[in-house]
Amino acid sequence: MLNFDFYAPARILFGKGTQSQIGSLLKPHAKKVLLHYGGGSIKKSGLYDEVTASLLESEIPFVELGGVAPNPRLSLVREGIALCRKENVDLILAVGGGSAIDSSKAIAMGVFQEGDVWDVYEQSTAIEKALPVAVILTIPAAGSESSGDTVLTNEEKKLKYGYGSPRLRPLLSIMNPELFFTLPKNQIANGIADMMSHVFERYFTNTTHTDLTDNLCEAVLKTIMKNAPLVIADPKNYDAWSEIGFSGTVAHNGLVGMGREQDWACHGMEHELSAIYDVAHGAGLAVLTPAWMSYVYKDNLSMFVQFAVNVMGVSGSYRDPEAIVLEGIARLREFFNKLGLPAALKDLGIDEENLELMAKKSTGAAFDDESPIGSLKRLYWQDVLEIYKLVR
Amino acid sequence: MLNFDFYAPARILFGKGTQSQIGSLLKPHAKKVLLHYGGGSIKKSGLYDEVTASLLESEIPFVELGGVAPNPRLSLVREGIALCRKENVDLILAVGGGSAIDSSKAIAMGVFQEGDVWDVYEQSTAIEKALPVAVILTIPAAGSESSGDTVLTNEEKKLKYGYGSPRLRPLLSIMNPELFFTLPKNQIANGIADMMSHVFERYFTNTTHTDLTDNLCEAVLKTIMKNAPLVIADPKNYDAWSEIGFSGTVAHNGLVGMGREQDWACHGMEHELSAIYDVAHGAGLAVLTPAWMSYVYKDNLSMFVQFAVNVMGVSGSYRDPEAIVLEGIARLREFFNKLGLPAALKDLGIDEENLELMAKKSTGAAFDDESPIGSLKRLYWQDVLEIYKLVR
Repeated sequence: MLNFDFYAPARILFGKGTQSQIGSLLKPHAKKVLLHYGGGSIKKSGLYDEVTASLLESEIPFVELGGVAPNPRLSLVREGIALCRKENVDLILAVGGGSAIDSSKAIAMGVFQEGDVWDVYEQSTAIEKALPVAVILTIPAAGSESSGDTVLTNEEKKLKYGYGSPRLRPLLSIMNPELFFTLPKNQIANGIADMMSHVFERYFTNTTHTDLTDNLCEAVLKTIMKNAPLVIADPKNYDAWSEIGFSGTVAHNGLVGMGREQDWACHGMEHELSAIYDVAHGAGLAVLTPAWMSYVYKDNLSMFVQFAVNVMGVSGSYRDPEAIVLEGIARLREFFNKLGLPAALKDLGIDEENLELMAKKSTGAAFDDESPIGSLKRLYWQDVLEIYKLVR
Repeated sequence: MLNFDFYAPARILFGKGTQSQIGSLLKPHAKKVLLHYGGGSIKKSGLYDEVTASLLESEIPFVELGGVAPNPRLSLVREGIALCRKENVDLILAVGGGSAIDSSKAIAMGVFQEGDVWDVYEQSTAIEKALPVAVILTIPAAGSESSGDTVLTNEEKKLKYGYGSPRLRPLLSIMNPELFFTLPKNQIANGIADMMSHVFERYFTNTTHTDLTDNLCEAVLKTIMKNAPLVIADPKNYDAWSEIGFSGTVAHNGLVGMGREQDWACHGMEHELSAIYDVAHGAGLAVLTPAWMSYVYKDNLSMFVQFAVNVMGVSGSYRDPEAIVLEGIARLREFFNKLGLPAALKDLGIDEENLELMAKKSTGAAFDDESPIGSLKRLYWQDVLEIYKLVR
């Protein structure tokens, strides 16, 4: 086990009706709130009315900024920063999924940046300050409700970068599984692939003596894999949604990756797809993850045997470990397939035109500044291109 | 899954050499520190010198109060409160195990109490304020390094009461497994029984649809059970200690019990043993837990089948679930036995004289104010007496 620093202070309020507490929960922390959200779905569902009624009841003034798109954009963030400064906002309330939360985090730190907030993403400089962010979660997937991470797309430069700081951990997040009932099935499936990837990126490691976090990773993965088909079959299944929602948080609050070298190559490779083709992050991960596994498993065969046996339930003769691994990967592909997730880049509308460009961007080779991605196996742009080609 | 409110803000710094960072870590938070610890072991090991050198290097003045005993006492807490007030201490640094930390938490809240701090334990009143507590952990067991809980013994009244508040969650806790190398084997075993009990108290529940926390509980228990024999066999095994230490924290930071009705009958029954006989908490739990299981399993047979199969590795014919359960409980007894833990009250020096008194105290019947303990099965004093008698 490696040395680690674990800090996950986001308070999670879970359960039926919890969104109606938002006003009283924020009252001690906020004089003026920015309500930040996506499209019209929260208005249609009545959530918008509930939230604003709760803020009014607690006499918390607010301004609002809707229009967050999947793969949230720098332009809207800049607008939010200007609005917060003008209106003296001191807390941002994200109502939505990862996109609304990540956009809120960008605004929260941007308010205190003298230069452009994009510089923080581009230069990965440590921030000193950020407004507090609170969350009412409507899409379990990104884990952003408890993490200190944000991912933003610069639509002019066609770049999608991530940034993390403990100062960006939400103050509190409300998770009521009932709010997930109206999600379309493809979005449910994308979210499931995303949260599974958050565990995979931490699970696959060359670090040894990691019993606890191995077991915790497997616990989260098995929970997701048991309940995912249930929410796809019946999006009003509260009990199954409870497991999926809570798992999405535990997958990404940091705990299950402590003391291990983490990988994150799949996220790196996927961000290039989203940056150019604006594909759903989870759908991109569902395509790339099994391909990545096929490409790297020989570098740590026993790690992949453990995955196949403990997570995918493969049994048989351990005298042929490679067969065990390949069966495990095949089962993961089949699992994604049954959820309705895509299996190839062409299913995402991605042809071969930009494969080399995306591979070179993923490692920085496109900017003459290459550093390999991943840690279980270090991947150069040629490796990434091979992985893209495996699932073109 | 039940509604829940999860908040675990204690920062955990884990690994080799981390204790030398204590001065710089506390500098932003403390003008004057109370160093609170037990006996001479931290002086003998050199830890005391390391910690004080780090505080001096960061120019943090400190006063100190040693002498915390296992089952920490109200009298020393009162002394600590007076010292903190006199010296204007604004942060308490506990160097030790659960006793030093729990005693520190009592002082931390007592400083702001107008009346006696024991009233807080006796009346369970919500506290408004407490000094921040930081921890350098030397005994992994109690989980107090991340919890908001404290247990204190009133030695005059022979009462041992617990109290909990989010305001008592430590600011930060340092965990370097090297600091555990000198623990005597019986103390190691007691600690293991204690942390396993923290999971058991959450795991055994009548709440349904608890996949994630079921799996997390089982993950922690399996990790502890794999690594416990390794640290008993070789108390200088850093890797095994890392698993045990980290497991002790995850067992009690709240996560694995979220959304479930929890039990806590064994803790309640054990506190009565410690209050009168001053036995080690973990040793008392090792005696009582299998007895409790034998007494209650019929009330939720399937929960105990799950325990026997998933945790204790029992297999066989599920057409005789009771046999599966009894084999699981027998294996737990055997596991404790191999660690050198006691199996009966008489091994703890407890005769039959006070069994009825302790049973009546545990439910409040001794004070004409009985409310049953436990939730998987509600236990009245007659039940507690039966359980004590099972292992007299």
